[in-house]
Amino acid sequence: MAIKYELVKEAADCKARLGRLHTPHGIIETPTFMPVGTKATVKTMTPEELKEIGSQIILGNTYHLYLRPGHQLIEEAGGLHKFMNWDGPILTDSGGFQVFSLGDLRKIEEKGVEFRSHIDGSKHFISPEMSIEIQNALGSDIIMAFDECTPYPSDKEYVKNSLERTTRWAERCKDAHKNPHTQALFGIVQGGMYKDLREQSAKELLDLDFPGYAIGGLSVGEPAELMNDVVEFTTPFLPKNKPRYLMGVGSPDYLFEAVIRGIDMADCVLPTRIARNGTVLTSKGKIVVRNAQYKKDFSKLDSQCDCYTCENYSRAYIRHLFNVNEILGLRLTTIHNLYFLLKLMENIRKAIKEDRLMDYRESFYKSYGYIK
Amino acid sequence: MAIKYELVKEAADCKARLGRLHTPHGIIETPTFMPVGTKATVKTMTPEELKEIGSQIILGNTYHLYLRPGHQLIEEAGGLHKFMNWDGPILTDSGGFQVFSLGDLRKIEEKGVEFRSHIDGSKHFISPEMSIEIQNALGSDIIMAFDECTPYPSDKEYVKNSLERTTRWAERCKDAHKNPHTQALFGIVQGGMYKDLREQSAKELLDLDFPGYAIGGLSVGEPAELMNDVVEFTTPFLPKNKPRYLMGVGSPDYLFEAVIRGIDMADCVLPTRIARNGTVLTSKGKIVVRNAQYKKDFSKLDSQCDCYTCENYSRAYIRHLFNVNEILGLRLTTIHNLYFLLKLMENIRKAIKEDRLMDYRESFYKSYGYIK
Repeated sequence: MAIKYELVKEAADCKARLGRLHTPHGIIETPTFMPVGTKATVKTMTPEELKEIGSQIILGNTYHLYLRPGHQLIEEAGGLHKFMNWDGPILTDSGGFQVFSLGDLRKIEEKGVEFRSHIDGSKHFISPEMSIEIQNALGSDIIMAFDECTPYPSDKEYVKNSLERTTRWAERCKDAHKNPHTQALFGIVQGGMYKDLREQSAKELLDLDFPGYAIGGLSVGEPAELMNDVVEFTTPFLPKNKPRYLMGVGSPDYLFEAVIRGIDMADCVLPTRIARNGTVLTSKGKIVVRNAQYKKDFSKLDSQCDCYTCENYSRAYIRHLFNVNEILGLRLTTIHNLYFLLKLMENIRKAIKEDRLMDYRESFYKSYGYIK
Repeated sequence: MAIKYELVKEAADCKARLGRLHTPHGIIETPTFMPVGTKATVKTMTPEELKEIGSQIILGNTYHLYLRPGHQLIEEAGGLHKFMNWDGPILTDSGGFQVFSLGDLRKIEEKGVEFRSHIDGSKHFISPEMSIEIQNALGSDIIMAFDECTPYPSDKEYVKNSLERTTRWAERCKDAHKNPHTQALFGIVQGGMYKDLREQSAKELLDLDFPGYAIGGLSVGEPAELMNDVVEFTTPFLPKNKPRYLMGVGSPDYLFEAVIRGIDMADCVLPTRIARNGTVLTSKGKIVVRNAQYKKDFSKLDSQCDCYTCENYSRAYIRHLFNVNEILGLRLTTIHNLYFLLKLMENIRKAIKEDRLMDYRESFYKSYGYIK
């Protein structure tokens, strides 16, 4: 097996799990947040900086890498790790989410999905086999089965048909997978917002015995409470001895709510994307540092933060950099936001260890402004 | 005195000088190249990265910092060093060059120059006194007298009148300078391409006894040979015990030619600007790494380079980053180009020490492709 999940401890006050995920490129302490490096780079950052702020694993996006520079080129370069100079674990998605997001530009069939590139309109076809072929070429430690991320809302019949196809595709992915000893293939549980369909999807995928499972089809526009409900009733369908990955989640509250319901891994472009718009996460909530009100604010982004940015630069300086379109501004806010979430996850792991996660969550929510 | 120039050695085979410039923020080994940090940041770089590649001193631009964020704000922040987190020496220009470059947007009078901001068209006035007031507020180690950079070509009468006004302005700058013990004010020799006018300008400025002298008005469109001639006949007019700064020069050949004619310091946006366009300097000449021909080139930018970029990334990866507009690409080429020039200057200093600068220059020119 490519990976091994070690369950270290279950929380006493919630369903959170402390674990250790052994991968070919190192051990990941879970629960963990995974920064997204769509096009073979976490935007603005070097691998060394990612390590310094505590990134244990990063994501790559199969759809983007397939189009540019192409998976064959990355394979020729010696794989994604070598190409981008990151020697830690990498997870790649299946490309499904991006392809389905193309809307009118794609056509779903049992065989796979035909789509037009968002870059030049050229025609492409991704099947489960093709998705795995690409991910095999990339050489990521964790690869994802090609699934349909059902939109929200969708009627039950559509969701049922879709998840059953996702199961058939998952089986084809497993059959196509050439490197099961060096790359762990995760199944993705679908089933929309329906408990019985989530159960059906989980059972069908469990029969295929994947080394890890993701919960897909969430954080796609549904209310937060609904997402939490789905996570809550889905995690019990998943085995305890395998990692659970909630796809597309990366705000502090979503992460807390996922972890206390038994999630081990999550990813999202949110912290890096808002950073590049000049929005930063702080212990007292979000601030838009590019705003004029910070022009003469010589304090740091977050008084409680000890990241590189906060140790060395003022809000006034960062605001200036954004105001004059300097790249260093994007770097400094990206470092801060990722550090903020990675540190949060570290604190969450510590709180699980010390059986005080629910208390930590409450004090964080009060400080952040989620609850008054 | 704010600074002290120590002449360590004069080359046997040319007019190059090895020196040490003592400043309030550290010692600079000369000859040196100074990376340009126009808006309180050397584009894409952190101060730590600048140090790591061997930057001894960086530049700031008075005109840009006066407009945004404003010199008062930087003074409130504790000065430019603190604002931008750079604790090494800083040199600021006078703002003159940028203001004169505005063309129709400015009006020159004896009192100073009225101009409109290139950002919002707002009206401003910079006099010699104002330039020094701004630079005093910024707190840079070396500040420059407010001069007119005469365009090329200009007729002799215009140049003579202009340089005489530059002398009068230099005197006013000296009178206005509030911190002569912590900030060294350099005079700028003008005089166009005319030897007798360069001599006149140098003599007038020497009477004012500045701690250092710049040669201005070059690299403004004149042929390279003409520039070299002017440097050649101007340096003998300058005192041996003070540093000599050639403004606006930063290609390898210009740097060699300046140094062998007795120049100690130079600056230019060239290496950083071309880096952001995907052009890099190598020991075998310039290459445009964003070009398709490097798509599958897994070698490093320069086989002889040991910078961070060359130690860790391939041309193919950097080409990919440019192709998909990723900021890391701009960072990697900037690091490489600055390192290339800073390493070149280090090698030049070593060659002066070992009395083989002219040989080193010839072998470099052959490898680079300047001579066949």
